[in-house]
Amino acid sequence: MPLIVQKYGGSSVADAERIINVAKRIGAVQKSGAAVVVVVSAMGDTTDELIELAHTISHEPHAREMDLLLSTGELVSSTLLTMALRELGHEAISLSGPQAGIRTDTSFGRARISRIEPARVRRELDAGRIVVVAGFQGITAEDDITTLGRGGSDTTAVAIAAALQADRCEIYTDVEGIYTADPRIVSGARKIDEVGYEEMLELASLGAKMHPRSIELGGVYRVPIYVASSFSDTPGTLIHTGNQMEDRIKVTGIAYNANVAKITVQSVPDRPGLAAALFEPLAEASISVDTIVQNTGGDKSTDISFTVSRTDLPAAVRLVEGMAQQLGAAGVVSSAGLAAVSIVGSGMQNTPGYASRMFRLLANGGVNIDMITTSEIRISCIIDESQGRDAVRLLHEGFQLDRS
Amino acid sequence: MPLIVQKYGGSSVADAERIINVAKRIGAVQKSGAAVVVVVSAMGDTTDELIELAHTISHEPHAREMDLLLSTGELVSSTLLTMALRELGHEAISLSGPQAGIRTDTSFGRARISRIEPARVRRELDAGRIVVVAGFQGITAEDDITTLGRGGSDTTAVAIAAALQADRCEIYTDVEGIYTADPRIVSGARKIDEVGYEEMLELASLGAKMHPRSIELGGVYRVPIYVASSFSDTPGTLIHTGNQMEDRIKVTGIAYNANVAKITVQSVPDRPGLAAALFEPLAEASISVDTIVQNTGGDKSTDISFTVSRTDLPAAVRLVEGMAQQLGAAGVVSSAGLAAVSIVGSGMQNTPGYASRMFRLLANGGVNIDMITTSEIRISCIIDESQGRDAVRLLHEGFQLDRS
Repeated sequence: MPLIVQKYGGSSVADAERIINVAKRIGAVQKSGAAVVVVVSAMGDTTDELIELAHTISHEPHAREMDLLLSTGELVSSTLLTMALRELGHEAISLSGPQAGIRTDTSFGRARISRIEPARVRRELDAGRIVVVAGFQGITAEDDITTLGRGGSDTTAVAIAAALQADRCEIYTDVEGIYTADPRIVSGARKIDEVGYEEMLELASLGAKMHPRSIELGGVYRVPIYVASSFSDTPGTLIHTGNQMEDRIKVTGIAYNANVAKITVQSVPDRPGLAAALFEPLAEASISVDTIVQNTGGDKSTDISFTVSRTDLPAAVRLVEGMAQQLGAAGVVSSAGLAAVSIVGSGMQNTPGYASRMFRLLANGGVNIDMITTSEIRISCIIDESQGRDAVRLLHEGFQLDRS
Repeated sequence: MPLIVQKYGGSSVADAERIINVAKRIGAVQKSGAAVVVVVSAMGDTTDELIELAHTISHEPHAREMDLLLSTGELVSSTLLTMALRELGHEAISLSGPQAGIRTDTSFGRARISRIEPARVRRELDAGRIVVVAGFQGITAEDDITTLGRGGSDTTAVAIAAALQADRCEIYTDVEGIYTADPRIVSGARKIDEVGYEEMLELASLGAKMHPRSIELGGVYRVPIYVASSFSDTPGTLIHTGNQMEDRIKVTGIAYNANVAKITVQSVPDRPGLAAALFEPLAEASISVDTIVQNTGGDKSTDISFTVSRTDLPAAVRLVEGMAQQLGAAGVVSSAGLAAVSIVGSGMQNTPGYASRMFRLLANGGVNIDMITTSEIRISCIIDESQGRDAVRLLHEGFQLDRS
């Protein structure tokens, strides 16, 4: 009997009517002869409402307490969905994260799954039941409840699919799949039928917004992930490691991130350990650094520029200014109004011409490039945010992504 | 260091402002040098709202799912109260029922605590923390969440106090203690300073409505229970086994229950096992039978009358009618509009004159008595509900309860 893990997001279970609709979809899958595990997010805006409630009580709610509080959202949706399934005549049971054996580390608010003990899930499946698991939550070795961070239910679903060696993991959301560009920016953006895990990591912001760790996990355990809408039967996007992808050398999509800020440490004396000294305080403050560019001039001093998310900019500047003084730098300058535009495609690195074609397209469109970085499957340019959306459209058209 | 267990009901934590007030009260107790465990109910009407939500999805929500759903209410209030305590600078931690080691049987919706494993609570207390426990909930040996039934947080609090051998258990609610009669019926009702466990069981409906099992448990483990208002500092009522109570032979209070219905099985042939045959089906249907009166006439047949709560009447009549036919009874009659009025006081049974004085007071007031039952500490009369409130006032005045 095939085993399918399905995940339904908050908008898919936002009210009683939608919960009943989802129950009908799940029932149909079971009737077709599959065993089904369902992972659910909290109803609609529940999580945001709980966070707001906590902030009426405490300026900085304690992370452990916040996680125990937030975990209730998924308990509510999973029990209600189970009641709906039973009302339709299906045998079903809901399991909390701990009951489903989701073990995590102790990083409250952004815990990582350390392992899954699926004995109870297996037992309930063997008893012919649909198993509804509360997403987004787990339990530490010390018996404390954790949450996996925004979008963490995706990771719950993929991790359970991996632990149960499920045939596939289906992520149902309010958009119909992954697109070649953000459909709100590019009207001609097309839905992608299939995509590799690494590409998907780069494209995660296009259409269905998936939890990046769920895609990493899917890649490691080779779990095929199908992303589609819970509101229609239109085919979605399959994320997997297919044969045809090894040969594919074209651009899959244009990623875009408008939340970019840049910091430059000017004329800092160049010596070993410089970058480490500069970036360690940022790492300790959990500030994620993206693009890093170092230009060493002839005079034994160097400029180091890097990007952070715009929300982290004030804290990052504070930390960097302290360090720059110690390192003997001439100064620190920063700017907030930047964006990153990227072309993404597996195998691109091994094929010449993509980078130069990207730069030419941007140049022809009058877009100035501030910084450049590349990875195996991605070429990114940091540009002025005011030109960001135009740049996405230029590249989408230039790489002919509007044609299938 | 004294150890105090406090319980705050739903109205005491109904909104952010009240939660902060409760946190201030708790903080003051800790500052006075006591170790504190706090048990909380769900905020305001949360439990009713969750029940209503479940009924929008399912006509008869599955009991196991309902318990997991309802358990979220106390998780929310306990985490928010903990955040409030931390915001005030106190070290505090919230524990779910399972984390606090509340083990129960598998009777979903009305589970009984089988034992408490207080290791985690002790560890957190030893670390100098205020421990906030989610009331009303526990976990079975099979790792399923249960709830203890309406008012179950009282039982959580007393059970934890017993397991930790706490110095006392304080139940904070929205009334100021236990009264000699329902203050809504008798304007001269007085607050009782102290009362025994058995008396309290009979008086549980007067003023502070406590979960009966919490009082039983308090009596078995000799936990002093203090009932008072969380909205004022007026002294409340202490439930305990004091020396002075052994000597006290007066009436403590007038209990009243307006939710009484009576069923009479007429002229049923008298033989051994008759009562068992009649009442077993009711017990199986979880219908609680109160007063039972059997009058055997001279003709080897008997009338059996008994009372049930009014809400159980239709189901009880159905069951009894089937059984009465098998037993060869002449018929079954029932009436719904009855009430029970009782005088309650420890040692009353050993002192003559209370029963006759009660009957005389009712007779002088023109109140007709339908049925009578007595226990060690209670004499109850079943009367017409239309005369019920007058009867309470007559007895309260007649036994001089308005004078201290």
